[in-house]
Amino acid sequence: MRIGPQHLVDLAAGAAFLGTGGGGDPYIYRLATAAALHEHGDVELVNLDDLPDSAVVMSIGGAGAPTIGREKLPNGLEGQWALRKLEAYLGKRADALIAAEIGGGNGLVPILTAAHTRLPVVDGDGMGRAYPETQMMTFSIYGVSATPMSAVDEFGDGVVITARDSVTAERIVRQVGLAMGGQCMCADHAMDAETARRVAVKGTVTLALELGRQIRQSADLAAFVAASRSHLEAAGYGAAVPLLEGKVVDVSRDLVGGYDVGVVKLKSFTTARTMQIMVRNEYLVAIEEGRYIATVPDLICIVDNDTLEPITSERIRYGQRVAVIGVGAPPTYRTPEALAVTGPRAFGFDVDFTPLDNTN
Amino acid sequence: MRIGPQHLVDLAAGAAFLGTGGGGDPYIYRLATAAALHEHGDVELVNLDDLPDSAVVMSIGGAGAPTIGREKLPNGLEGQWALRKLEAYLGKRADALIAAEIGGGNGLVPILTAAHTRLPVVDGDGMGRAYPETQMMTFSIYGVSATPMSAVDEFGDGVVITARDSVTAERIVRQVGLAMGGQCMCADHAMDAETARRVAVKGTVTLALELGRQIRQSADLAAFVAASRSHLEAAGYGAAVPLLEGKVVDVSRDLVGGYDVGVVKLKSFTTARTMQIMVRNEYLVAIEEGRYIATVPDLICIVDNDTLEPITSERIRYGQRVAVIGVGAPPTYRTPEALAVTGPRAFGFDVDFTPLDNTN
Repeated sequence: MRIGPQHLVDLAAGAAFLGTGGGGDPYIYRLATAAALHEHGDVELVNLDDLPDSAVVMSIGGAGAPTIGREKLPNGLEGQWALRKLEAYLGKRADALIAAEIGGGNGLVPILTAAHTRLPVVDGDGMGRAYPETQMMTFSIYGVSATPMSAVDEFGDGVVITARDSVTAERIVRQVGLAMGGQCMCADHAMDAETARRVAVKGTVTLALELGRQIRQSADLAAFVAASRSHLEAAGYGAAVPLLEGKVVDVSRDLVGGYDVGVVKLKSFTTARTMQIMVRNEYLVAIEEGRYIATVPDLICIVDNDTLEPITSERIRYGQRVAVIGVGAPPTYRTPEALAVTGPRAFGFDVDFTPLDNTN
Repeated sequence: MRIGPQHLVDLAAGAAFLGTGGGGDPYIYRLATAAALHEHGDVELVNLDDLPDSAVVMSIGGAGAPTIGREKLPNGLEGQWALRKLEAYLGKRADALIAAEIGGGNGLVPILTAAHTRLPVVDGDGMGRAYPETQMMTFSIYGVSATPMSAVDEFGDGVVITARDSVTAERIVRQVGLAMGGQCMCADHAMDAETARRVAVKGTVTLALELGRQIRQSADLAAFVAASRSHLEAAGYGAAVPLLEGKVVDVSRDLVGGYDVGVVKLKSFTTARTMQIMVRNEYLVAIEEGRYIATVPDLICIVDNDTLEPITSERIRYGQRVAVIGVGAPPTYRTPEALAVTGPRAFGFDVDFTPLDNTN
């Protein structure tokens, strides 16, 4: 299929849902991508199976704290600049782009970049959601080197990073992002399509489109839960599970080491139930009365209780009437090697991952 | 001439003197350089006038807070790695190395790197002393682009930075250095010898050697002042001027944004005079009773009052018996364009540069 401007509202909403609070509000990238598609034409969405084994796939996405994006706007060319910088370093060109993470604005960045460069975009990504750190990408988890990694800002300043491992790459790019005002745009994890087929989370662009459509069309939360099930299951995710409907009663948020770190507190509309959601760019764990009721890598999504529009972590605020929805992570994130870097203990929570589908 | 292990004690002492507190204690680099010279042979010291116009000169030096160097030791290969990384990015090899700054351990780094790479070292540098920031190098001040700039750590992790100007390069490399534990090794300011002749501070390796010799041979401060005069003047510096002999009565020191920032307070041995020296990696200004008596770019050097051994800013501590010595900056740092980025106002002091030779 080809992605045109008419797909972007749904794609943005679905990406924001899958972002579990992170990846940045897609609004600006939705506008920038629409403008680029109008100017340059539609973008081809390809399956990894349709690419030759040796096709070169490069991953594109922004790094930084989502709150920064409320004030620091991109010029829209950063993805292209990051890509060209990585290509120049490697001495080879990309044949296709893939999202570092489908979540939030980062789900649209490869499409914007593809519009500028006339490259196809892969129906898939490196997270199946959003995560705060490089080593949490499936590409890294399953053995692709994160570096060389380029990172650029909106002025064209840039770096190419080489590092012994993805954790080190993350530490360096996070500091580079701070030097660039709190966010930077990266190209990384260059790999051939044969490798990408093994390591990517597949079908997530299509999934975001479908989820966005259901968000737009569903009359209420129950309808969304029912309508989204087949799409989520087709992509390997668990079903959407309503965890709480209620009001945001407190939000704390600090910029710590280049990440947004905070807590969202909620209270049920109808009962005495309360919930705490711990944030590190993304909504990581949901805690009720001291009990973890949802944990990474399962998705924790917060949506407006009336419109079902996803609310990203930098936009969550006191008084919002929301629904908290859990979604079971796809199998690629349930392996021991994936849980070692993306499970709750990787974020400092003293609890093992308990899949939602076991507890609900 | 050729530099061998027998030169390193004097060279290190002279470099520490010229470092005005910064550039890092040369002790570790003295040992590493001695070992490398023993293993690989002496290093050729060349004048820029003896290089062909088109010879490629690259600048080498560490960036970071000097205190970090007390615990984070180099493996000695960082300079070579940074050089090779810059060469690979540029697609050309260096014909000669030049010190980013002659001050402190950074005065020895190019010699260590030259021992490993069998390249000659230029008798000169990019600061004629030490300064905390990239844009303060004469190379940058007089129009050479600081980037592409490579920066590596002791594990071989690295970046290549491209930036719109030296201030941006500095901001990025400082953050990269923080990600690498607080210090990194850089290669930058690639230029041809014709350009280097125009922008470098010349003769500073020889000057450091001579100053080190005088430090070792002089019986006391007065003898050092007298003996150093002709060497300083030959390199374009003003004479050494004793500013205070006394005791360190207080030191404050914080790591702020990747720099050591603090204040050294001194009290005269024999009178009621007191002095404050403001530190940002280097000793920047000396203040007595609210009056600035020495200011950057003039050099402010603190030496042991008995041995005349220079004391770098990360080694200065309560109770030391010291002499504070001022040295007039060479003419290349007295121009309006140099003072704009290296004068006291560039560091936030509300005072114009008043040359020592006017006030003493």
